[in-house]
Amino acid sequence: MSTLALAMCLPAVADAAVHNPDWQVFALAAAFTLLIGVMLMITARSPSRSLNQRQAFVLTTLSWTAIPAFAALPFTFSELDMTYTDAFFEAMSGITTTGSTVMTGLDFAPPGILLWRALLQWLGGIGIIAMAIAILPMLQVGGMQLFRTESSDKSDKVIPRAAQLITFIGFIYLGIALSYWLAGMTGFDAVAHAMTTIATGGFSTSDQSVGRFASPAVDVIACVFMLLGSLPFVLYLRVLRGNVGALWRDSQVRWFLTTVILAIVAVSTYLYLKLGVGPVRALELASFNVVSIITGTGYATADFGLWGSFPVTIFLFLMVVGGCAGSTTCGIKIFRFQVLYATAVTQVRHLLEPHGVFIAYYNGKPIGESVSDSVMSFFFLYAASFAVIAVGLGLIGLDFLTAMSGAATAISNVGPGLGDVIGPAGTFVSLPDSAKWLLSLGMLMGRLELFTVLVLMAPAFWHR
Amino acid sequence: MSTLALAMCLPAVADAAVHNPDWQVFALAAAFTLLIGVMLMITARSPSRSLNQRQAFVLTTLSWTAIPAFAALPFTFSELDMTYTDAFFEAMSGITTTGSTVMTGLDFAPPGILLWRALLQWLGGIGIIAMAIAILPMLQVGGMQLFRTESSDKSDKVIPRAAQLITFIGFIYLGIALSYWLAGMTGFDAVAHAMTTIATGGFSTSDQSVGRFASPAVDVIACVFMLLGSLPFVLYLRVLRGNVGALWRDSQVRWFLTTVILAIVAVSTYLYLKLGVGPVRALELASFNVVSIITGTGYATADFGLWGSFPVTIFLFLMVVGGCAGSTTCGIKIFRFQVLYATAVTQVRHLLEPHGVFIAYYNGKPIGESVSDSVMSFFFLYAASFAVIAVGLGLIGLDFLTAMSGAATAISNVGPGLGDVIGPAGTFVSLPDSAKWLLSLGMLMGRLELFTVLVLMAPAFWHR
Repeated sequence: MSTLALAMCLPAVADAAVHNPDWQVFALAAAFTLLIGVMLMITARSPSRSLNQRQAFVLTTLSWTAIPAFAALPFTFSELDMTYTDAFFEAMSGITTTGSTVMTGLDFAPPGILLWRALLQWLGGIGIIAMAIAILPMLQVGGMQLFRTESSDKSDKVIPRAAQLITFIGFIYLGIALSYWLAGMTGFDAVAHAMTTIATGGFSTSDQSVGRFASPAVDVIACVFMLLGSLPFVLYLRVLRGNVGALWRDSQVRWFLTTVILAIVAVSTYLYLKLGVGPVRALELASFNVVSIITGTGYATADFGLWGSFPVTIFLFLMVVGGCAGSTTCGIKIFRFQVLYATAVTQVRHLLEPHGVFIAYYNGKPIGESVSDSVMSFFFLYAASFAVIAVGLGLIGLDFLTAMSGAATAISNVGPGLGDVIGPAGTFVSLPDSAKWLLSLGMLMGRLELFTVLVLMAPAFWHR
Repeated sequence: MSTLALAMCLPAVADAAVHNPDWQVFALAAAFTLLIGVMLMITARSPSRSLNQRQAFVLTTLSWTAIPAFAALPFTFSELDMTYTDAFFEAMSGITTTGSTVMTGLDFAPPGILLWRALLQWLGGIGIIAMAIAILPMLQVGGMQLFRTESSDKSDKVIPRAAQLITFIGFIYLGIALSYWLAGMTGFDAVAHAMTTIATGGFSTSDQSVGRFASPAVDVIACVFMLLGSLPFVLYLRVLRGNVGALWRDSQVRWFLTTVILAIVAVSTYLYLKLGVGPVRALELASFNVVSIITGTGYATADFGLWGSFPVTIFLFLMVVGGCAGSTTCGIKIFRFQVLYATAVTQVRHLLEPHGVFIAYYNGKPIGESVSDSVMSFFFLYAASFAVIAVGLGLIGLDFLTAMSGAATAISNVGPGLGDVIGPAGTFVSLPDSAKWLLSLGMLMGRLELFTVLVLMAPAFWHR
């Protein structure tokens, strides 16, 4: 909370610099949030800092709900005059790095608000990396125990590792900002887009998203860094330590890149053959949008809703695929598909030789029963949560395509949905308030790998 | 094949009775099919009748492809003048008890064709029950080993059990036909609808489906017997032997009926509150259509596509749920959801107490690891096959709703899809041929519980 308050000072400075009165809103919100943060620190001071499993679950879910609740304050009280529902939705979409927005007129919005949206995604991105390294493997959520190394149990090794990573992310971030600037963005646009690119967030400073710049150089830079943001960040540490092959030797990275390439080939061939787009432009459009959707970033350079139902159907399924575990992306994630596929292949072989013993492998190591059960339960709960949210949105009155793609985009933290209303050319502002709250819950559940939130709903959690 | 040839004689007689020249088509098709059947019997005569695992897979998939290939002959050569693609689609839809149709003008069609469509579903329904009892548990497909009793291994007990069941189905069938007739149907309509009701198939003798009769009595009879067709048929044998409580004590039956009731309550409340339908009519419409969709029958009394996106979204998910294992229904089936749910609950409890040991139960017995892996792989492959078929239909050029619901309705053997084209008020006739072949493959895969077909695509199958 205190970090959030400090972060609020940056937009305050930005607004003050252009003499926008909103700087007072940011300053007041910062003061209020800091007050609460310091009060919490004082009241919760205790010599012991170790959490048990149950406390860790409550703390994780609670922080990811409290932060958007406070981060929404500047939106509500700024001159934009948003309702608190809209403000909370925007803040949740920011901190979960989703990128769904209720705002229009971004091109003329004050710099403070634009910076605040970018900062939220940047903070959310760092929070997720820290969580994926330090907390989720410990909680053994949805098969994340696959990534539990000896070191992740002992906080004395986790902290320096996280610190190293954050320094590294800082450098990468500067690299992106510089590249964008060299490609022709203003300094401010470059800073804001760098934050939302590495976090695979997707907020932009224009209603037309990255399409505004109409620059192939910008598209390529965005593409490259969205992909980098979707790979397991711990591997970068190994690369930095000189183990350059670590990235390519990781089977998750190979599967992910193969999926991306296959999807790009399919969509660009379709654009070329069926819609008559020139081959280079087809490849450009397909690459940018496939990468933007599968990484859950949600930048747009074109309204792919107009491309026909083949790309739309592909994009709907790509949305839920997501990137690698330990990255800033969301969705089911590649390693889960690897585990599911390996188990299915084992099943097929078992059908052929009922008395044979077959073992499923992940990254060269056998997959334990607890991991495969965990991954499969995750997959089932993902499908079930998707169905519940989609039916809920249908009940609220959204049309079929909006309900289906809204549920998918929220739970997978992608950003835009499909169709006229919430597609890449639309916004979420026209949806009823109840839909916005339901989608916010979906974003939270998706971001915290479902189990972290669902476990709080189990009666057994509150029983003993 | 020979049985199929004998079945073709019935429509020949029906057509001859009304002096329709199509009787010759049926007679010729019967002769040709019988010739092939007898040739196969002669060439394949062998003292040993035992099949190994691999042969059983090939034989199952091959028979379910060859039968519609021959059953399509009367459609192509009759005065309807259908293309072979349309005829094969109609026959596959019949034998897999799907109920999707490419035919219009049913109300004026000759009796032979109408009877042939009903007979195909009737034969398909019996084939499925026999397969679910005798073959699938042996093949251990998708968790079906849960239903492997000692007796199902030894053919000396399976055959009398299957014979008992078929006699029982015969009686039930007569009961349905009589009820329909008493409710006001003509004798012919009653006979045809009884065949497609018990098989949860859904072919009707009218373009308006069961809605043509506009009779609440007919609706209620259809509803009751569609539900009876969705329960595990082996349990009826226990009920007949005096164990009347067997049905209700089965947890699969309880889960299924609870799901049906919840869906009916949700949809009828919605119809009453949002669309202003009278309470009795709302309950009537909701009950009939929910039961028709979840059991995969596909009868229609109203175009539920006009009800708004809440029922449409619910129906899309109900489609893939399906009925109980060992019934004539298709879809993922209730017992798989029970296994998935039990495993997910175990996972959540494990998250709370990482050192505890928790065991998932089905019907009071612990679920073995092989069963849970098998069920989860089935669920994953179902989702993956659905995605592939939906993307394929998108590529062929169908709109989003038609592609998504077409994939769902085919793989779940339901019948109608959603939307204007293939919804309850439309037919599949306008789809391109490639879409019809893809949907036929989907129906086959869904009907044979995926693994039976997919295993043939594994390189390992053909290797050794």
